Amino acid sequence: MEYISTIAELNKVRNNLHSPLGLVPTMGALHHGHLSLIRRAKSENASVIVTIFINPTQFKEGEDYQAYPKLIESDLSILRKEKVDIAFVPPVAEMYPHGFDSWVEVQKMGHLLEGASRSQHFKGVATIVTKIFNIIRPNKAYFGQKDGQQALIIKQLNRDLNLCVDIVINPTVREHDGLAYSSRNINLSLTERNAATILFKSLEKARKVFLDGDHNAKRIKIVVSELIKCQPLAKLDYISVADAQTLQELTEIDRPTMISLAAFIGNTRLIDNILI
Amino acid sequence: MEYISTIAELNKVRNNLHSPLGLVPTMGALHHGHLSLIRRAKSENASVIVTIFINPTQFKEGEDYQAYPKLIESDLSILRKEKVDIAFVPPVAEMYPHGFDSWVEVQKMGHLLEGASRSQHFKGVATIVTKIFNIIRPNKAYFGQKDGQQALIIKQLNRDLNLCVDIVINPTVREHDGLAYSSRNINLSLTERNAATILFKSLEKARKVFLDGDHNAKRIKIVVSELIKCQPLAKLDYISVADAQTLQELTEIDRPTMISLAAFIGNTRLIDNILI
Repeated sequence: MEYISTIAELNKVRNNLHSPLGLVPTMGALHHGHLSLIRRAKSENASVIVTIFINPTQFKEGEDYQAYPKLIESDLSILRKEKVDIAFVPPVAEMYPHGFDSWVEVQKMGHLLEGASRSQHFKGVATIVTKIFNIIRPNKAYFGQKDGQQALIIKQLNRDLNLCVDIVINPTVREHDGLAYSSRNINLSLTERNAATILFKSLEKARKVFLDGDHNAKRIKIVVSELIKCQPLAKLDYISVADAQTLQELTEIDRPTMISLAAFIGNTRLIDNILI
Repeated sequence: MEYISTIAELNKVRNNLHSPLGLVPTMGALHHGHLSLIRRAKSENASVIVTIFINPTQFKEGEDYQAYPKLIESDLSILRKEKVDIAFVPPVAEMYPHGFDSWVEVQKMGHLLEGASRSQHFKGVATIVTKIFNIIRPNKAYFGQKDGQQALIIKQLNRDLNLCVDIVINPTVREHDGLAYSSRNINLSLTERNAATILFKSLEKARKVFLDGDHNAKRIKIVVSELIKCQPLAKLDYISVADAQTLQELTEIDRPTMISLAAFIGNTRLIDNILI
Protein backbone atom coordinates (compact mmCIF):
# COMPACT_ATOMS: atom_id res chain seq x y z
CA MET A 1 0.00 0.00 0.00
CA GLU A 2 1.23 3.46 -0.90
CA TYR A 3 0.65 6.36 1.53
CA ILE A 4 0.09 9.61 -0.35
CA SER A 5 -0.65 13.03 1.11
CA THR A 6 -0.40 15.46 -1.82
CA ILE A 7 -2.37 15.88 -5.03
CA ALA A 8 0.88 16.15 -7.01
CA GLU A 9 2.07 12.71 -5.80
CA LEU A 10 -1.39 11.28 -6.46
CA ASN A 11 -1.31 12.60 -10.04
CA LYS A 12 2.03 10.87 -10.61
CA VAL A 13 0.75 7.40 -9.71
CA ARG A 14 -2.89 7.74 -10.81
CA ASN A 15 -2.45 6.70 -14.44
CA ASN A 16 -0.40 3.63 -13.55
CA LEU A 17 -3.28 2.11 -11.57
CA HIS A 18 -5.22 -0.68 -13.27
CA SER A 19 -8.83 -0.03 -14.23
CA PRO A 20 -11.48 -0.13 -12.98
CA LEU A 21 -10.46 2.03 -10.03
CA GLY A 22 -12.65 1.95 -6.91
CA LEU A 23 -12.72 4.81 -4.39
CA VAL A 24 -13.80 4.66 -0.75
CA PRO A 25 -13.86 8.20 0.70
CA THR A 26 -13.78 8.23 4.52
CA MET A 27 -13.13 10.51 7.48
CA GLY A 28 -11.08 7.75 9.15
CA ALA A 29 -11.77 6.05 12.49
CA LEU A 30 -12.52 3.04 10.33
CA HIS A 31 -15.15 0.54 11.51
CA HIS A 32 -16.99 -2.48 10.10
CA GLY A 33 -19.16 -0.22 7.95
CA HIS A 34 -16.05 1.10 6.19
CA LEU A 35 -14.65 -2.43 5.96
CA SER A 36 -17.71 -3.61 4.06
CA LEU A 37 -17.23 -0.73 1.59
CA ILE A 38 -13.52 -1.45 1.17
CA ARG A 39 -14.04 -5.19 0.68
CA ARG A 40 -16.78 -4.60 -1.86
CA ALA A 41 -14.55 -2.09 -3.68
CA LYS A 42 -11.70 -4.65 -3.66
CA SER A 43 -13.99 -7.34 -5.09
CA GLU A 44 -15.34 -5.11 -7.88
CA ASN A 45 -12.21 -3.24 -9.01
CA ALA A 46 -8.64 -3.82 -10.15
CA SER A 47 -7.35 -1.02 -7.90
CA VAL A 48 -8.71 0.67 -4.78
CA ILE A 49 -7.96 4.06 -3.23
CA VAL A 50 -9.21 4.88 0.28
CA THR A 51 -9.15 8.54 1.30
CA ILE A 52 -9.00 9.67 4.92
CA PHE A 53 -9.90 13.33 5.32
CA ILE A 54 -11.86 14.90 8.16
CA ASN A 55 -13.48 17.62 6.10
CA PRO A 56 -13.68 20.80 8.19
CA THR A 57 -16.21 22.53 5.91
CA GLN A 58 -18.98 20.03 6.66
CA PHE A 59 -18.90 20.88 10.38
CA LYS A 60 -20.40 24.12 11.59
CA GLU A 61 -19.09 26.05 14.55
CA GLY A 62 -19.96 24.30 17.79
CA GLU A 63 -20.13 20.88 16.14
CA ASP A 64 -17.67 18.09 16.84
CA TYR A 65 -14.92 18.81 14.28
CA GLN A 66 -12.25 19.04 16.99
CA ALA A 67 -13.65 16.03 18.87
CA TYR A 68 -14.06 13.87 15.75
CA PRO A 69 -12.08 10.67 16.42
CA LYS A 70 -8.58 10.57 14.87
CA LEU A 71 -7.02 7.10 14.69
CA ILE A 72 -4.70 7.43 11.73
CA GLU A 73 -2.13 4.78 12.73
CA SER A 74 -4.70 2.07 13.34
CA ASP A 75 -6.59 3.16 10.20
CA LEU A 76 -3.46 2.73 8.07
CA SER A 77 -2.76 -0.68 9.53
CA ILE A 78 -6.32 -1.74 8.64
CA LEU A 79 -5.86 -0.45 5.08
CA ARG A 80 -2.54 -2.31 4.77
CA LYS A 81 -4.20 -5.50 5.94
CA GLU A 82 -7.01 -5.02 3.41
CA LYS A 83 -4.37 -4.53 0.69
CA VAL A 84 -5.79 -1.33 -0.74
CA ASP A 85 -3.48 0.19 -3.33
CA ILE A 86 -3.34 3.76 -2.06
CA ALA A 87 -4.25 5.55 1.16
CA PHE A 88 -4.75 9.22 0.25
CA VAL A 89 -4.49 11.30 3.43
CA PRO A 90 -4.16 14.98 2.49
CA PRO A 91 -3.72 17.73 5.10
CA VAL A 92 -6.41 20.42 5.23
CA ALA A 93 -4.26 23.00 3.40
CA GLU A 94 -3.86 20.59 0.48
CA MET A 95 -7.62 20.45 -0.07
CA TYR A 96 -8.45 24.01 0.97
CA PRO A 97 -5.45 26.17 0.05
CA HIS A 98 -5.36 29.87 0.91
CA GLY A 99 -8.05 31.77 -0.99
CA PHE A 100 -10.22 28.70 -1.64
CA ASP A 101 -13.76 29.87 -2.38
CA SER A 102 -15.58 27.57 -4.86
CA TRP A 103 -18.51 25.60 -3.51
CA VAL A 104 -20.84 22.90 -4.78
CA GLU A 105 -24.37 22.70 -3.47
CA VAL A 106 -27.36 20.44 -4.10
CA GLN A 107 -29.86 23.12 -3.41
CA LYS A 108 -33.21 21.69 -2.35
CA MET A 109 -32.17 18.30 -0.99
CA GLY A 110 -29.17 19.83 0.76
CA HIS A 111 -31.40 21.87 3.04
CA LEU A 112 -33.75 19.11 4.22
CA LEU A 113 -33.29 16.86 7.31
CA GLU A 114 -29.57 16.85 8.17
CA GLY A 115 -29.22 20.04 6.11
CA ALA A 116 -31.94 21.73 8.18
CA SER A 117 -30.28 20.71 11.46
CA ARG A 118 -26.73 21.29 10.22
CA SER A 119 -26.71 24.31 7.88
CA GLN A 120 -23.86 24.24 5.32
CA HIS A 121 -23.19 20.56 6.13
CA PHE A 122 -24.01 19.21 2.68
CA LYS A 123 -22.36 22.15 0.94
CA GLY A 124 -19.15 20.97 2.62
CA VAL A 125 -19.87 17.35 1.70
CA ALA A 126 -20.76 18.11 -1.94
CA THR A 127 -17.68 20.30 -2.37
CA ILE A 128 -15.18 17.81 -0.95
CA VAL A 129 -16.71 14.87 -2.83
CA THR A 130 -16.53 16.81 -6.11
CA LYS A 131 -12.89 17.64 -5.41
CA ILE A 132 -11.99 14.07 -4.46
CA PHE A 133 -13.76 12.67 -7.55
CA ASN A 134 -11.88 15.14 -9.77
CA ILE A 135 -8.52 14.40 -8.16
CA ILE A 136 -8.88 10.61 -8.17
CA ARG A 137 -11.14 10.07 -11.22
CA PRO A 138 -12.46 6.72 -9.97
CA ASN A 139 -14.73 4.44 -11.99
CA LYS A 140 -16.76 3.55 -8.91
CA ALA A 141 -17.16 5.20 -5.51
CA TYR A 142 -18.58 3.50 -2.42
CA PHE A 143 -20.76 5.07 0.28
CA GLY A 144 -22.88 3.66 3.11
CA GLN A 145 -26.68 3.71 3.33
CA LYS A 146 -26.24 4.77 6.98
CA ASP A 147 -25.73 8.31 5.67
CA GLY A 148 -28.82 7.95 3.52
CA GLN A 149 -29.35 11.58 2.63
CA GLN A 150 -25.66 11.99 1.82
CA ALA A 151 -25.91 9.03 -0.56
CA LEU A 152 -28.82 10.67 -2.43
CA ILE A 153 -27.05 14.03 -2.58
CA ILE A 154 -23.86 12.49 -3.95
CA LYS A 155 -25.85 10.57 -6.58
CA GLN A 156 -27.56 13.81 -7.61
CA LEU A 157 -24.43 15.95 -7.85
CA ASN A 158 -22.64 13.17 -9.73
CA ARG A 159 -25.49 13.12 -12.25
CA ASP A 160 -26.02 16.89 -12.41
CA LEU A 161 -22.35 17.87 -12.75
CA ASN A 162 -21.56 14.99 -15.15
CA LEU A 163 -18.88 13.54 -12.87
CA CYS A 164 -19.41 10.13 -14.52
CA VAL A 165 -18.64 8.03 -11.44
CA ASP A 166 -20.61 4.87 -10.75
CA ILE A 167 -22.00 5.50 -7.22
CA VAL A 168 -22.42 2.32 -5.16
CA ILE A 169 -24.44 2.43 -1.92
CA ASN A 170 -23.78 -0.37 0.55
CA PRO A 171 -26.33 -1.47 3.21
CA THR A 172 -25.85 -0.20 6.76
CA VAL A 173 -23.66 -2.49 8.87
CA ARG A 174 -24.91 -2.96 12.44
CA GLU A 175 -23.59 -4.33 15.71
CA HIS A 176 -25.21 -7.45 17.23
CA ASP A 177 -27.86 -5.30 18.95
CA GLY A 178 -28.72 -3.27 15.87
CA LEU A 179 -26.70 -0.08 16.54
CA ALA A 180 -25.34 1.17 13.22
CA TYR A 181 -21.54 1.34 13.10
CA SER A 182 -20.42 4.97 13.23
CA SER A 183 -17.08 6.60 13.97
CA ARG A 184 -18.91 8.69 16.55
CA ASN A 185 -19.93 5.62 18.62
CA ILE A 186 -16.43 5.79 20.12
CA ASN A 187 -17.50 8.95 21.96
CA LEU A 188 -20.33 7.15 23.83
CA SER A 189 -19.93 6.08 27.46
CA LEU A 190 -20.95 2.48 28.21
CA THR A 191 -24.37 3.59 29.49
CA GLU A 192 -24.85 5.81 26.43
CA ARG A 193 -23.71 2.97 24.17
CA ASN A 194 -26.51 0.81 25.52
CA ALA A 195 -29.03 3.65 25.36
CA ALA A 196 -28.10 4.25 21.69
CA THR A 197 -29.81 1.02 20.63
CA ILE A 198 -33.07 2.97 20.95
CA LEU A 199 -32.44 4.51 17.49
CA PHE A 200 -32.63 1.27 15.53
CA LYS A 201 -35.24 -0.20 17.91
CA SER A 202 -37.57 2.72 17.18
CA LEU A 203 -36.96 2.37 13.42
CA GLU A 204 -37.73 -1.34 13.65
CA LYS A 205 -40.91 -0.51 15.57
CA ALA A 206 -41.85 1.92 12.76
CA ARG A 207 -41.31 -0.84 10.21
CA LYS A 208 -43.55 -3.16 12.24
CA VAL A 209 -46.33 -0.57 12.46
CA PHE A 210 -46.10 -0.15 8.67
CA LEU A 211 -46.07 -3.90 7.98
CA ASP A 212 -49.06 -4.28 10.31
CA GLY A 213 -50.97 -2.04 7.92
CA ASP A 214 -50.71 1.55 9.21
CA HIS A 215 -49.25 3.65 6.38
CA ASN A 216 -49.89 7.03 7.98
CA ALA A 217 -46.62 8.95 8.29
CA LYS A 218 -47.72 11.14 11.19
CA ARG A 219 -48.73 8.18 13.34
CA ILE A 220 -45.49 6.36 12.55
CA LYS A 221 -43.49 9.44 13.56
CA ILE A 222 -45.40 9.60 16.86
CA VAL A 223 -44.62 5.95 17.59
CA VAL A 224 -40.91 6.61 17.05
CA SER A 225 -40.75 9.80 19.10
CA GLU A 226 -42.74 8.28 21.97
CA LEU A 227 -40.34 5.33 22.07
CA ILE A 228 -37.30 7.60 22.08
CA LYS A 229 -38.81 9.71 24.88
CA CYS A 230 -38.78 6.58 27.07
CA GLN A 231 -34.98 6.55 26.92
CA PRO A 232 -33.87 9.39 29.26
CA LEU A 233 -30.36 9.65 27.70
CA ALA A 234 -31.80 10.19 24.22
CA LYS A 235 -33.09 13.44 22.72
CA LEU A 236 -34.71 13.27 19.27
CA ASP A 237 -33.54 15.90 16.78
CA TYR A 238 -35.86 14.91 13.93
CA ILE A 239 -37.82 11.96 12.58
CA SER A 240 -38.65 11.89 8.87
CA VAL A 241 -40.84 9.69 6.68
CA ALA A 242 -39.88 10.72 3.15
CA ASP A 243 -39.81 9.68 -0.49
CA ALA A 244 -36.66 7.55 -0.78
CA GLN A 245 -35.57 9.37 -3.96
CA THR A 246 -36.48 13.02 -3.39
CA LEU A 247 -36.69 13.13 0.44
CA GLN A 248 -39.98 14.99 0.19
CA GLU A 249 -41.94 14.30 3.38
CA LEU A 250 -44.92 11.97 2.88
CA THR A 251 -48.31 11.94 4.59
CA GLU A 252 -49.01 8.36 3.45
CA ILE A 253 -46.37 5.72 2.71
CA ASP A 254 -47.38 4.94 -0.87
CA ARG A 255 -43.96 4.53 -2.50
CA PRO A 256 -40.36 3.50 -1.63
CA THR A 257 -39.70 5.41 1.59
CA MET A 258 -36.79 6.27 3.85
CA ILE A 259 -37.58 6.60 7.54
CA SER A 260 -34.67 8.50 9.05
CA LEU A 261 -33.87 10.13 12.35
CA ALA A 262 -31.20 11.99 14.25
CA ALA A 263 -30.89 11.98 18.01
CA PHE A 264 -28.47 13.07 20.67
CA ILE A 265 -27.33 10.34 23.04
CA GLY A 266 -25.75 12.43 25.78
CA ASN A 267 -23.61 14.90 23.78
CA THR A 268 -23.14 12.62 20.79
CA ARG A 269 -25.39 13.14 17.79
CA LEU A 270 -26.20 9.93 15.90
CA ILE A 271 -28.23 9.25 12.75
CA ASP A 272 -29.87 6.13 11.36
CA ASN A 273 -32.43 5.16 8.73
CA ILE A 274 -34.31 2.26 7.17
CA LEU A 275 -35.77 1.84 3.69
CA ILE A 276 -39.28 0.46 3.38
CA MET B 1 -16.50 18.47 -38.54
CA GLU B 2 -18.87 16.38 -36.49
CA TYR B 3 -22.09 17.94 -35.16
CA ILE B 4 -23.03 16.45 -31.77
CA SER B 5 -25.99 17.35 -29.58
CA THR B 6 -26.06 14.70 -26.83
CA ILE B 7 -23.66 13.78 -24.05
CA ALA B 8 -23.99 10.09 -24.95
CA GLU B 9 -22.77 10.72 -28.54
CA LEU B 10 -19.99 12.94 -27.21
CA ASN B 11 -18.82 10.19 -24.86
CA LYS B 12 -18.63 7.76 -27.79
CA VAL B 13 -16.22 9.90 -29.81
CA ARG B 14 -14.33 11.63 -26.96
CA ASN B 15 -11.66 9.01 -26.44
CA ASN B 16 -10.86 8.73 -30.15
CA LEU B 17 -9.80 12.39 -30.32
CA HIS B 18 -6.07 13.07 -30.41
CA SER B 19 -4.51 14.80 -27.42
CA PRO B 20 -4.10 17.53 -26.45
CA LEU B 21 -7.76 18.50 -26.79
CA GLY B 22 -8.67 22.19 -26.84
CA LEU B 23 -12.12 23.47 -25.87
CA VAL B 24 -13.73 26.77 -26.83
CA PRO B 25 -17.04 27.18 -24.96
CA THR B 26 -19.34 29.76 -26.59
CA MET B 27 -22.94 30.93 -26.60
CA GLY B 28 -22.82 31.15 -30.41
CA ALA B 29 -23.35 34.25 -32.56
CA LEU B 30 -19.66 33.82 -33.31
CA HIS B 31 -17.56 36.93 -33.99
CA HIS B 32 -13.88 37.78 -34.41
CA GLY B 33 -13.30 37.40 -30.66
CA HIS B 34 -14.44 33.77 -30.86
CA LEU B 35 -12.40 33.28 -34.04
CA SER B 36 -9.23 34.33 -32.27
CA LEU B 37 -9.97 31.75 -29.53
CA ILE B 38 -10.72 29.00 -32.04
CA ARG B 39 -7.61 29.70 -34.12
CA ARG B 40 -5.41 29.76 -31.05
CA ALA B 41 -6.98 26.48 -29.86
CA LYS B 42 -6.36 24.96 -33.32
CA SER B 43 -2.73 26.06 -33.24
CA GLU B 44 -2.07 24.68 -29.74
CA ASN B 45 -3.98 21.35 -29.81
CA ALA B 46 -4.33 18.18 -31.86
CA SER B 47 -8.15 18.34 -31.60
CA VAL B 48 -10.61 21.15 -30.94
CA ILE B 49 -14.20 21.09 -29.68
CA VAL B 50 -16.34 24.23 -29.83
CA THR B 51 -19.52 24.24 -27.75
CA ILE B 52 -22.51 26.43 -28.57
CA PHE B 53 -24.93 26.67 -25.67
CA ILE B 54 -26.93 29.71 -24.60
CA ASN B 55 -26.95 28.94 -20.90
CA PRO B 56 -30.33 29.95 -19.44
CA THR B 57 -29.16 29.82 -15.80
CA GLN B 58 -26.76 32.74 -16.21
CA PHE B 59 -29.58 35.09 -17.22
CA LYS B 60 -31.94 36.39 -14.59
CA GLU B 61 -35.56 37.17 -15.24
CA GLY B 62 -35.93 40.33 -17.30
CA GLU B 63 -32.49 39.94 -18.89
CA ASP B 64 -31.93 39.21 -22.56
CA TYR B 65 -32.06 35.38 -22.62
CA GLN B 66 -34.88 35.36 -25.16
CA ALA B 67 -33.32 38.17 -27.20
CA TYR B 68 -29.81 36.68 -27.16
CA PRO B 69 -28.76 36.34 -30.82
CA LYS B 70 -29.18 32.85 -32.32
CA LEU B 71 -27.29 32.26 -35.55
CA ILE B 72 -26.72 28.52 -35.47
CA GLU B 73 -26.49 27.91 -39.25
CA SER B 74 -23.93 30.63 -39.84
CA ASP B 75 -22.07 29.57 -36.67
CA LEU B 76 -21.77 25.99 -37.94
CA SER B 77 -20.56 27.13 -41.32
CA ILE B 78 -17.84 29.19 -39.59
CA LEU B 79 -16.81 26.16 -37.49
CA ARG B 80 -16.66 23.98 -40.60
CA LYS B 81 -14.46 26.52 -42.33
CA GLU B 82 -12.17 26.66 -39.28
CA LYS B 83 -11.97 22.83 -39.37
CA VAL B 84 -12.79 22.27 -35.73
CA ASP B 85 -13.25 18.57 -34.95
CA ILE B 86 -16.54 18.72 -33.11
CA ALA B 87 -19.34 21.26 -32.65
CA PHE B 88 -21.16 20.31 -29.45
CA VAL B 89 -24.59 21.95 -29.47
CA PRO B 90 -26.76 20.42 -26.72
CA PRO B 91 -30.39 21.41 -26.17
CA VAL B 92 -31.26 22.91 -22.77
CA ALA B 93 -32.84 19.67 -21.49
CA GLU B 94 -29.59 17.80 -22.18
CA MET B 95 -27.65 20.07 -19.85
CA TYR B 96 -30.43 20.72 -17.32
CA PRO B 97 -32.61 17.61 -17.20
CA HIS B 98 -35.73 17.47 -15.05
CA GLY B 99 -34.85 17.68 -11.35
CA PHE B 100 -31.45 19.30 -11.95
CA ASP B 101 -30.38 21.06 -8.74
CA SER B 102 -26.59 21.03 -8.22
CA TRP B 103 -24.82 24.35 -8.42
CA VAL B 104 -21.25 25.61 -8.38
CA GLU B 105 -20.45 29.00 -6.98
CA VAL B 106 -17.30 31.06 -6.52
CA GLN B 107 -18.56 32.79 -3.46
CA LYS B 108 -16.83 36.14 -2.91
CA MET B 109 -15.70 36.96 -6.43
CA GLY B 110 -19.00 35.80 -7.89
CA HIS B 111 -20.87 38.57 -6.12
CA LEU B 112 -18.69 41.52 -7.12
CA LEU B 113 -19.14 43.75 -10.21
CA GLU B 114 -21.14 41.75 -12.79
CA GLY B 115 -22.29 39.51 -9.93
CA ALA B 116 -23.60 42.52 -8.00
CA SER B 117 -25.50 43.81 -11.06
CA ARG B 118 -26.60 40.36 -12.25
CA SER B 119 -27.33 38.19 -9.19
CA GLN B 120 -26.92 34.45 -9.87
CA HIS B 121 -25.12 35.21 -13.15
CA PHE B 122 -21.80 33.64 -12.16
CA LYS B 123 -23.49 30.75 -10.38
CA GLY B 124 -24.97 29.88 -13.78
CA VAL B 125 -21.60 30.40 -15.49
CA ALA B 126 -19.62 28.37 -12.92
CA THR B 127 -22.13 25.53 -13.05
CA ILE B 128 -22.25 25.22 -16.83
CA VAL B 129 -18.46 25.53 -17.19
CA THR B 130 -17.95 22.78 -14.58
CA LYS B 131 -20.41 20.57 -16.45
CA ILE B 132 -18.84 21.23 -19.85
CA PHE B 133 -15.33 20.59 -18.49
CA ASN B 134 -16.51 17.29 -16.98
CA ILE B 135 -18.29 16.19 -20.14
CA ILE B 136 -15.47 17.12 -22.54
CA ARG B 137 -12.40 16.68 -20.30
CA PRO B 138 -10.26 19.06 -22.36
CA ASN B 139 -6.57 19.69 -21.79
CA LYS B 140 -6.93 23.40 -22.48
CA ALA B 141 -9.93 25.73 -22.51
CA TYR B 142 -10.00 29.17 -24.13
CA PHE B 143 -11.80 32.27 -22.89
CA GLY B 144 -11.66 35.97 -23.78
CA GLN B 145 -10.27 38.75 -21.59
CA LYS B 146 -13.36 40.79 -22.63
CA ASP B 147 -15.25 38.87 -19.94
CA GLY B 148 -12.48 39.62 -17.48
CA GLN B 149 -14.28 38.72 -14.26
CA GLN B 150 -15.59 35.50 -15.82
CA ALA B 151 -12.01 34.57 -16.74
CA LEU B 152 -10.87 35.02 -13.12
CA ILE B 153 -13.85 33.06 -11.77
CA ILE B 154 -13.24 30.16 -14.14
CA LYS B 155 -9.56 30.08 -13.21
CA GLN B 156 -10.51 29.99 -9.54
CA LEU B 157 -13.14 27.24 -9.79
CA ASN B 158 -10.82 25.20 -12.01
CA ARG B 159 -8.12 25.45 -9.31
CA ASP B 160 -10.45 25.02 -6.31
CA LEU B 161 -12.41 22.04 -7.65
CA ASN B 162 -9.31 20.35 -9.12
CA LEU B 163 -10.71 20.33 -12.65
CA CYS B 164 -7.15 20.17 -14.03
CA VAL B 165 -7.81 22.15 -17.20
CA ASP B 166 -5.21 24.58 -18.53
CA ILE B 167 -7.18 27.87 -18.74
CA VAL B 168 -6.01 30.17 -21.54
CA ILE B 169 -7.19 33.78 -21.62
CA ASN B 170 -6.93 35.55 -24.98
CA PRO B 171 -6.73 39.36 -25.33
CA THR B 172 -9.90 41.25 -26.21
CA VAL B 173 -10.45 41.59 -29.96
CA ARG B 174 -11.72 45.02 -31.03
CA GLU B 175 -13.23 46.61 -34.12
CA HIS B 176 -11.30 49.34 -35.95
CA ASP B 177 -12.75 52.01 -33.64
CA GLY B 178 -11.99 50.11 -30.43
CA LEU B 179 -15.44 48.59 -29.69
CA ALA B 180 -14.89 45.11 -28.24
CA TYR B 181 -16.47 42.35 -30.33
CA SER B 182 -19.54 40.99 -28.53
CA SER B 183 -22.46 38.87 -29.67
CA ARG B 184 -24.71 41.54 -28.20
CA ASN B 185 -23.38 44.24 -30.59
CA ILE B 186 -25.79 42.81 -33.17
CA ASN B 187 -28.67 44.27 -31.12
CA LEU B 188 -27.37 47.85 -31.45
CA SER B 189 -28.92 50.29 -33.93
CA LEU B 190 -26.45 52.14 -36.13
CA THR B 191 -26.59 55.22 -33.87
CA GLU B 192 -26.15 53.06 -30.79
CA ARG B 193 -23.29 51.21 -32.48
CA ASN B 194 -21.46 54.51 -32.91
CA ALA B 195 -22.32 55.63 -29.38
CA ALA B 196 -20.95 52.34 -27.99
CA THR B 197 -17.38 53.38 -28.79
CA ILE B 198 -17.60 55.53 -25.64
CA LEU B 199 -16.88 52.41 -23.51
CA PHE B 200 -13.40 51.80 -24.84
CA LYS B 201 -12.71 55.53 -25.29
CA SER B 202 -13.39 56.11 -21.61
CA LEU B 203 -11.17 53.15 -20.63
CA GLU B 204 -8.40 54.53 -22.84
CA LYS B 205 -8.84 57.91 -21.18
CA ALA B 206 -8.49 56.18 -17.78
CA ARG B 207 -5.27 54.54 -18.95
CA LYS B 208 -3.95 57.93 -20.09
CA VAL B 209 -4.74 59.56 -16.74
CA PHE B 210 -2.90 56.70 -15.02
CA LEU B 211 0.10 56.89 -17.36
CA ASP B 212 0.23 60.66 -16.81
CA GLY B 213 0.84 59.91 -13.15
CA ASP B 214 -2.54 59.97 -11.35
CA HIS B 215 -2.92 56.62 -9.59
CA ASN B 216 -5.97 57.55 -7.52
CA ALA B 217 -8.82 55.12 -8.25
CA LYS B 218 -11.60 57.51 -7.29
CA ARG B 219 -10.41 60.25 -9.63
CA ILE B 220 -9.98 57.79 -12.47
CA LYS B 221 -13.53 56.51 -11.94
CA ILE B 222 -14.83 60.10 -12.06
CA VAL B 223 -13.01 60.73 -15.35
CA VAL B 224 -14.68 57.63 -16.88
CA SER B 225 -18.17 58.35 -15.60
CA GLU B 226 -18.00 62.03 -16.67
CA LEU B 227 -16.98 60.96 -20.17
CA ILE B 228 -19.80 58.42 -20.41
CA LYS B 229 -22.31 61.02 -19.20
CA CYS B 230 -21.44 63.09 -22.31
CA GLN B 231 -22.89 60.33 -24.49
CA PRO B 232 -26.68 60.65 -24.15
CA LEU B 233 -27.36 57.07 -25.40
CA ALA B 234 -25.09 55.57 -22.73
CA LYS B 235 -25.95 54.85 -19.10
CA LEU B 236 -23.15 53.64 -16.84
CA ASP B 237 -23.97 50.62 -14.66
CA TYR B 238 -20.66 50.45 -12.79
CA ILE B 239 -17.02 51.42 -13.13
CA SER B 240 -14.43 49.45 -11.15
CA VAL B 241 -10.72 49.86 -10.48
CA ALA B 242 -9.74 46.58 -8.88
CA ASP B 243 -6.87 44.20 -8.14
CA ALA B 244 -6.50 42.18 -11.36
CA GLN B 245 -6.33 38.88 -9.42
CA THR B 246 -8.84 39.25 -6.57
CA LEU B 247 -11.10 42.03 -7.97
CA GLN B 248 -10.94 43.82 -4.63
CA GLU B 249 -11.54 47.52 -5.27
CA LEU B 250 -8.42 49.68 -4.93
CA THR B 251 -8.03 53.21 -3.63
CA GLU B 252 -4.58 53.56 -5.24
CA ILE B 253 -3.36 51.69 -8.33
CA ASP B 254 -0.28 50.07 -6.77
CA ARG B 255 -0.44 46.61 -8.40
CA PRO B 256 -1.69 44.89 -11.61
CA THR B 257 -5.17 46.32 -12.02
CA MET B 258 -8.30 45.70 -14.07
CA ILE B 259 -10.39 48.75 -14.90
CA SER B 260 -13.78 47.42 -15.93
CA LEU B 261 -17.18 48.83 -16.65
CA ALA B 262 -20.71 47.94 -17.71
CA ALA B 263 -23.04 50.34 -19.47
CA PHE B 264 -26.35 50.30 -21.25
CA ILE B 265 -26.31 51.62 -24.78
CA GLY B 266 -30.03 52.00 -25.40
CA ASN B 267 -31.42 48.69 -24.12
CA THR B 268 -28.25 46.71 -24.74
CA ARG B 269 -25.91 46.12 -21.80
CA LEU B 270 -22.24 45.96 -22.77
CA ILE B 271 -19.09 45.34 -20.74
CA ASP B 272 -15.44 46.08 -21.36
CA ASN B 273 -12.17 46.24 -19.44
CA ILE B 274 -8.48 47.00 -19.69
CA LEU B 275 -5.54 45.68 -17.67
CA ILE B 276 -2.96 48.16 -16.43
